[in-house]
Amino acid sequence: MTDELEKNPAEPIRVGVLGARGRMGMEVCKAVDAAADLDLVAMVDQGDPLSTVADAGAEVVVDFTTPDVVMDNLDWCVNQGVNAVVGTTGFTGDRLERVRGWLAGKPGVGVVIAPNFGIGAVLMMQFAAKAARHFESVEIIEQHHPRKLDAPSGTATHTARLIAQARAEAGLGPAPDATKDEVPGARGAEIDGIRVHAVRAAGLVAHQEVLFGTTGETLTIRHDSLDRASFMPGVLLAVRAVRNRPGLTVGLDPLLD
Amino acid sequence: MTDELEKNPAEPIRVGVLGARGRMGMEVCKAVDAAADLDLVAMVDQGDPLSTVADAGAEVVVDFTTPDVVMDNLDWCVNQGVNAVVGTTGFTGDRLERVRGWLAGKPGVGVVIAPNFGIGAVLMMQFAAKAARHFESVEIIEQHHPRKLDAPSGTATHTARLIAQARAEAGLGPAPDATKDEVPGARGAEIDGIRVHAVRAAGLVAHQEVLFGTTGETLTIRHDSLDRASFMPGVLLAVRAVRNRPGLTVGLDPLLD
Amino acid sequence: MTDELEKNPAEPIRVGVLGARGRMGMEVCKAVDAAADLDLVAMVDQGDPLSTVADAGAEVVVDFTTPDVVMDNLDWCVNQGVNAVVGTTGFTGDRLERVRGWLAGKPGVGVVIAPNFGIGAVLMMQFAAKAARHFESVEIIEQHHPRKLDAPSGTATHTARLIAQARAEAGLGPAPDATKDEVPGARGAEIDGIRVHAVRAAGLVAHQEVLFGTTGETLTIRHDSLDRASFMPGVLLAVRAVRNRPGLTVGLDPLLD
Amino acid sequence: MTDELEKNPAEPIRVGVLGARGRMGMEVCKAVDAAADLDLVAMVDQGDPLSTVADAGAEVVVDFTTPDVVMDNLDWCVNQGVNAVVGTTGFTGDRLERVRGWLAGKPGVGVVIAPNFGIGAVLMMQFAAKAARHFESVEIIEQHHPRKLDAPSGTATHTARLIAQARAEAGLGPAPDATKDEVPGARGAEIDGIRVHAVRAAGLVAHQEVLFGTTGETLTIRHDSLDRASFMPGVLLAVRAVRNRPGLTVGLDPLLD
Repeated sequence: MTDELEKNPAEPIRVGVLGARGRMGMEVCKAVDAAADLDLVAMVDQGDPLSTVADAGAEVVVDFTTPDVVMDNLDWCVNQGVNAVVGTTGFTGDRLERVRGWLAGKPGVGVVIAPNFGIGAVLMMQFAAKAARHFESVEIIEQHHPRKLDAPSGTATHTARLIAQARAEAGLGPAPDATKDEVPGARGAEIDGIRVHAVRAAGLVAHQEVLFGTTGETLTIRHDSLDRASFMPGVLLAVRAVRNRPGLTVGLDPLLD
Repeated sequence: MTDELEKNPAEPIRVGVLGARGRMGMEVCKAVDAAADLDLVAMVDQGDPLSTVADAGAEVVVDFTTPDVVMDNLDWCVNQGVNAVVGTTGFTGDRLERVRGWLAGKPGVGVVIAPNFGIGAVLMMQFAAKAARHFESVEIIEQHHPRKLDAPSGTATHTARLIAQARAEAGLGPAPDATKDEVPGARGAEIDGIRVHAVRAAGLVAHQEVLFGTTGETLTIRHDSLDRASFMPGVLLAVRAVRNRPGLTVGLDPLLD
Repeated sequence: MTDELEKNPAEPIRVGVLGARGRMGMEVCKAVDAAADLDLVAMVDQGDPLSTVADAGAEVVVDFTTPDVVMDNLDWCVNQGVNAVVGTTGFTGDRLERVRGWLAGKPGVGVVIAPNFGIGAVLMMQFAAKAARHFESVEIIEQHHPRKLDAPSGTATHTARLIAQARAEAGLGPAPDATKDEVPGARGAEIDGIRVHAVRAAGLVAHQEVLFGTTGETLTIRHDSLDRASFMPGVLLAVRAVRNRPGLTVGLDPLLD
Repeated sequence: MTDELEKNPAEPIRVGVLGARGRMGMEVCKAVDAAADLDLVAMVDQGDPLSTVADAGAEVVVDFTTPDVVMDNLDWCVNQGVNAVVGTTGFTGDRLERVRGWLAGKPGVGVVIAPNFGIGAVLMMQFAAKAARHFESVEIIEQHHPRKLDAPSGTATHTARLIAQARAEAGLGPAPDATKDEVPGARGAEIDGIRVHAVRAAGLVAHQEVLFGTTGETLTIRHDSLDRASFMPGVLLAVRAVRNRPGLTVGLDPLLD
C-alpha cells in the first residue's frame, strides 16, 4: 500500500491502542470502534508484544500507558514508522527533546503529545489568553468534586499563567482591587498575580470559569466536563491529523487552528 | 377620615419621605411617585420640620436618613401615629428595644426596619437557609465591583451564618473536602465553617451565588443586583404592608410569606 | 419485635427493593447497601414471589417497577403492613384514591408516592413557586441531552404551571414584553402564559434555570442533575421518613419541610 | 507638525467628537476626557461648523451622528486628512465602497467603521466562530430587558450566521436533536439552522450565551453588558489605533488581534 492510498480519506485509518485495558485506553478503544473512518486493529496492554501493532498494520498508535514504559513505546513506534498520539503523562522538556531527536531521523513520522485532550478545555485556555489583554480585570473560578487533592486545579493554574503572560505582554498592571478588610482566603489564591478560587462540592465533576471585566461589561468563558469520555473527541482529532503532521506536535492547540 | 377608609385599597396611601434629597431618598420619591396606589405627599430633608409630614396627612413615612437622626424621627412618628418604613442603618439590639417600647404605648402603629430591601437578596437567603440541611456540600461565591472595601460582603457573611445554623440544626458535619495541597487562599474564607469566595472585577455590580451539592446534582441560587433601584420594590412592599402590621417588624422576611 | 423497637433509630431500617434488577432499582440497592442506617434485606424482580419481602422482615419496600404491576405490589404491601416508597410512574388521581382507600383500613402503614425523587428539583420548584409573586418577570430555560423526545421537559412544564398559579393568586398580569418583531419561536413556548425555552445539546444531561426579574435585579434558581444517582438522596429521605408518616404522602415536598 | 511628532505616543492624541450632545457622543466625550493619553479638543453637534474640528487641530474624529449626515462628515474628514472612528449606523456595502474610494486618494488617512464597539461582544463572536467547528451541538441564548422590540437580538442573529458558516466550512451537518413532541416555540427560532432563544425580563440589560456541546463536555461563552459605557473601551482602542491603520477598517476584529 502506498502513502497516497494510506492517506486516502475514503480508507479507514488503522489504529492500535497501547494501554488498552486501562481506564482511558478502554474509552479510546470504544471511541475508535464507534468512528466510521477509523479501524481498531490492535489492543495492546502489559505483557502483550508491541509487534502486535506492526503485525496488524496500524498506521497510528494511541498511547495511554504509564511514564515508565511510554518512552520505550515511542522509540519503537518512531523506528517502525508508526505515527503516535500520546496522552500518557510525565513529559518533561528533556523527554520531549529525546522524542524530537528520534523523529529527526524519521522525517515522515508524526507524534502528538498532549497533556489535555479536552477540546473544550484547550479552547477555553486559548480564548482566555486572547481576551486577557483587552480587560482590566480577570479572575478564575474552578469547581470540582470534593475528592480532588489539589486546589487550584492544574488547568486553573496553567490558565492563570497564560493570562498573566498575556497581560504582561500588553503592559497591563494589576487588576483594580480596593479590598481593605479581608477575611483570610476570601480573595482566593494568587497565581502569577491572577486570583484563582477553588470550589469543592459533591455533585460537581470538573468545571472552570474565567471571568473578564472592564467598564460596564464582562466576558465569561466556562468549561464543564462531565466524564472521561470528554477527552475522546480530542483524541480522535489527533488520530485523524497526526499522519499529516510529521515531527513532534505538543498540545492540542495547533490542531485546533 | 376613618381608619376603615384610610385602609381602603381604592384610596392611594399617603406617603412622606425623610431624607428625600439623599441618594436612596430620591429613588424612593421617584418610586412612590410612579406607583398608582401611592401618593407622595411630603419630601423632608435636613432643615425641614417634621411637622410637614403631619400637615400633609402622611399615613406612612419612609426614612432613609442617618443613624444620628433616625431615632428622633421614629420617636416622633410613633407619637404622631404615623407608620414608618426604615432603611437607615445602625439599628443595634438596644435601639430595636427602644422602638418596641415606644410602640407598646401606641398599639395601632406599625414600624418596619430592614437592613436590606432587596427582595431578591432576602429570598436568596431564605431559600439558602431552607436548602442547607438537604445538601452535604455548600459554598458561596459573591462577585462585586473592585471598589468594594470588604471581602466577603456583608450579605455573603450573613448567608453563611444562616446556612451554618441550619446545617447544625440538621446534624450535618463539615462538607466533604479532600484538599491536601492548597495554594493559600484557593479554598476561600471560612465563615462559621462555610467556604466563601469573593470575586472582584470591573464590570460587575453586586452578585451572589450559593451552590449546594449532593450525589449527582447541584442546586444554585443566584442573585444579581444591577442598581440602587433594585431596593424599591422591597420598599414599596413594606409601605403597602406596614399599616396592617402594628408593632415592630424587623427584616423583609415576614412580609414575603 | 415491637413497634417501639422497630422505630429505634439505633436499629438499621430493614429495606426490600421491588424492581431490583431495573436501572433505578439497581441504584436503590447500591444506595441502601451503602447507608449505615439501612439494611438491604430483599431484592425482588419479575418472577420472584413478593413473600420474599415479608420473609425477610422488610419494614419498608421501595418500588421502581412498572405501571402494570405497581398497584398489585402496593395492595399486597399495605395488607402486610409494610410501608412503601414508590417511584414507579403512572399514578392518576384515580389510582391515588384507591391507595388511600386501602390505607384507610390500615392506620399504621405509610406510603410515599413521588413523581420526582430529586431533592434539588423539588426544592427548585418550591422556591420558584414562592418567588413567583414577588417578580414581575419570569422565564424558564431548561437544557437537556439531544436524545430527549419532548420539549419542554415535564419538570419545566410543571414548574411553569406552579408559577402561573402563584402569579394568578398574587394578582399579577402578564410579564412585560415589548417584542414586535419576532423570528418564530425566538420567545419560546408558552405554558399557562409563562415562557419556556428548551435547549438541546450533546454534553448536557438535565438542567433547568428559572429566571425572575424586577427593577434592577434578577434571582435565578438553577438545578443541574448529572446522573440517575441524583435521585438516591430523595429515595433514602423517604425510606427514613415513611414509617413515621402513616397514610398517603404524594410528592417529596412535605418531607422537605 | 510632522508625522513623526503626530504619532509620538508621549503626546496626547487630539480628538474631536461629532454628535457630541447625543447619548453616545456624551459618553465618548467623558471617556476621551478621562484618558491621560487623549485630548478632547472639539465637541461638535448639529449647527456647529465642521471647521471647528480642523481649527482645533484634531487628529482623530469620533462620529456618533446619524445616517443622513455621516457620509458628508466622513467625506470632509478624509479630505482634510483627519482620521475617523465611526459608530454611526447604516453602512451598506455601497456606502463602504464610497468611503474606500475617497480613501484611495488619501493614502495616509485611516477610517474605522464598526457596528459594535463592545470589545466583549466582538470577542464573543470571534471565539464562537472559532469553536463552532469543534462541537457537534451549539445553541444561543440571549437575554434582554423587556422593552426590546426585536427577538432575537441583532448580535444573536449575527453570531448564529457566523457559527452556521463555520460549521458549513467544517462539513458539520445539523446538530443532533431527537425532539418529537414540541410545544410550539420551545426549541427556539432557527437562524441559518442554529437554534436561538430570546429571554426577556425586567432587571436584565443585554446578555448573550453561546453554548457548545460534544461528548461529555460543554463550552460556554457569555457576554454581559450593563450599560452604554461598555462601548467606550472599544472606541478608545480604535482612536488609539486608527492613525496607524491607513485605509478602511470595518469592525473591531482586526484591532483585537
